[in-house]
Amino acid sequence: MSGVSSPEGFVAAGVACGIKSSGDLDLSLVAAHDGRPVVAAAVFTTNKATAGPVNVTRAHLAATAGRAAAVVLNSGCANAATGATGDADAERMCELVAAGLGCQPSEVLVCSTGLIGYYLPMAAVEAGIRPLVAALREDGGQAAARAIMTTDTVLKEVSVTVDGYTVGGMAKGAAMLAPDMATMLAVLTTDAVADPEALVGQLRAAVAESFNALVVDGCTSTNDTVIVLANGRSGRPLGTGALTEACAQLAEQMAADAEGATKVARIRVHGAESDADARRAARKVAESQLVQCSLYGADPYWGRIVSELGSSGAAFHPGLVSVTYGRVAVCREGIAVEHDEAEVAEHLAGRHVVITADLGLGQGRAAMLFTDLTPGYIDENMRTS
Amino acid sequence: MSGVSSPEGFVAAGVACGIKSSGDLDLSLVAAHDGRPVVAAAVFTTNKATAGPVNVTRAHLAATAGRAAAVVLNSGCANAATGATGDADAERMCELVAAGLGCQPSEVLVCSTGLIGYYLPMAAVEAGIRPLVAALREDGGQAAARAIMTTDTVLKEVSVTVDGYTVGGMAKGAAMLAPDMATMLAVLTTDAVADPEALVGQLRAAVAESFNALVVDGCTSTNDTVIVLANGRSGRPLGTGALTEACAQLAEQMAADAEGATKVARIRVHGAESDADARRAARKVAESQLVQCSLYGADPYWGRIVSELGSSGAAFHPGLVSVTYGRVAVCREGIAVEHDEAEVAEHLAGRHVVITADLGLGQGRAAMLFTDLTPGYIDENMRTS
Repeated sequence: MSGVSSPEGFVAAGVACGIKSSGDLDLSLVAAHDGRPVVAAAVFTTNKATAGPVNVTRAHLAATAGRAAAVVLNSGCANAATGATGDADAERMCELVAAGLGCQPSEVLVCSTGLIGYYLPMAAVEAGIRPLVAALREDGGQAAARAIMTTDTVLKEVSVTVDGYTVGGMAKGAAMLAPDMATMLAVLTTDAVADPEALVGQLRAAVAESFNALVVDGCTSTNDTVIVLANGRSGRPLGTGALTEACAQLAEQMAADAEGATKVARIRVHGAESDADARRAARKVAESQLVQCSLYGADPYWGRIVSELGSSGAAFHPGLVSVTYGRVAVCREGIAVEHDEAEVAEHLAGRHVVITADLGLGQGRAAMLFTDLTPGYIDENMRTS
Repeated sequence: MSGVSSPEGFVAAGVACGIKSSGDLDLSLVAAHDGRPVVAAAVFTTNKATAGPVNVTRAHLAATAGRAAAVVLNSGCANAATGATGDADAERMCELVAAGLGCQPSEVLVCSTGLIGYYLPMAAVEAGIRPLVAALREDGGQAAARAIMTTDTVLKEVSVTVDGYTVGGMAKGAAMLAPDMATMLAVLTTDAVADPEALVGQLRAAVAESFNALVVDGCTSTNDTVIVLANGRSGRPLGTGALTEACAQLAEQMAADAEGATKVARIRVHGAESDADARRAARKVAESQLVQCSLYGADPYWGRIVSELGSSGAAFHPGLVSVTYGRVAVCREGIAVEHDEAEVAEHLAGRHVVITADLGLGQGRAAMLFTDLTPGYIDENMRTS
């Protein structure tokens, strides 16, 4: 039992209905095994150009006061920039799943991922949902995860068991990754008992520490959604730690699979005036095309780090900043220090790079995961058709 | 007479003093022909990691209440992240020029450009300044412009004559270009009469419409400075329009020479709730790695434009936005419209691309110049040594 179907009481499935011309899996479903609603919460993109499925999922959770029996997802088409037709198509997907499961349409949530500006091929989707519901199985998590892949090269699943309960999850995302989410979808399931009032807060906290601390290209998409379903069958209360751990593992998998990336780096900012300032500074470094290029070239040019910190908007004094690659300080109190260049070169040559900046001002701290900017990324994104 | 020495009463020079190991020109000087101070103003980087020369120039303009006789500049070393030594070295450059010209050190302004984190080779600089002063000539503008080039492939000069006076200028900058300036330096000279109280405001207005409306990679450097010297010899009052025109021509030259770029694009945003919102939206599109990749690939994927507009922070309604490539509308009221795909392809295949987005909300408008993201940019920036 893997991923999203690993907690007790959840089933999942993935089928190919023809949205993708390749014939790959493109329709995915995660459901309560008995089709009855459980406690649910979601966090959405901050992009104002929200896609139809985001509008519908938000409305359904409001209508049910946070309960859902299933999440239906498709890849190959984002159903974004599709106006009222897009909303109606997303609603129709929920109705068909609800008919199959015997629940209310408002108890079904919906996500889409793929290109913006295209209508869903509804004949294919409508024909696909009956076999999708019929395919639901306790070991269907992997097929469900495979059916939401777009430019992902590996499927992304997680299963965390602690304190007598399990959190399972699946995600997609390989570019347009930025804090405040990314071109990503994630569905988490758990057999822990969730407090309906508290669940969205727990999910927000988990997302803040995981998906929102990950940058590939600084872009935030129209469809980003993270959903959690909690059925309470273990009888154990859901801890935010387990939810965060599951999200963090999925975020790490997304960073490792980022389009064209050859390296994964972590920028840690200490000594900021506040945690918010530290996040601002870490994000500016992580989003910098020049820093991302240096990372690709394994170049130890720390001047770019200092320049980004200084232009981040965070409180900053040029005479107080220190920068460390791995464990080697290269800049202290704003100026170069003698150091072991071979050790820095060795650290930068690896797949995982850690850059630490101490602003020397206070106790604020934050960290951000990011990747290098490579010709492969350009190659992947220069043409969509 | 070209560039910065084209207005009446200004002389300029460029020499090689050995900062650049290549032997290329690396020390530059622009001066009043008689060494006597004229009205001066400057606009600086918003980066808080300011370089020594920025600190010194700011202090000198404060001490003289906006008067200067000369600007000395070097390429090959940014003299940034160099602490108190960096400030002292910049001050020393001014002292040596002042001794040569017979003015006060505080009447000399200073700029540096190149790598961050390295001290200026002061023996070379000190030995170079006497021949630099001796080389000042009325036709020295081109040598001065050449001596501030770093990764620039062409020198950038301008000379605008209107209403009986001339504005001359030179600039450097090919990457780390962003609104709020960029890794750029520019010196403007004019024989118009400037009101000392008004000049900095005129310069800010000119910069806002030119250098601050240009994005190459969204990075803002430690050294960015734009300086204007006005000696009043024409007897005609300086118009902001001429200053803006000179800055805009230099900004266009910078965009055309951007590292690795194959295309120059203009994103125009109309119909925003305010001009500030329009600028925010235009900037988000211009800075988008995904939009920059699409531009490189001549890909008509307007979904990325809509997604960036929606996540820009500007007021936005997905059902009201329209997007046009060249003169062809591809998206209206948030959804795809039938259009002449061949005409769009032809427009995108050219070197100059114009993208217009109408947010459909109000009267706010703004425009931003940007370039494509190419393997050449990565190649140029992945290693600095």
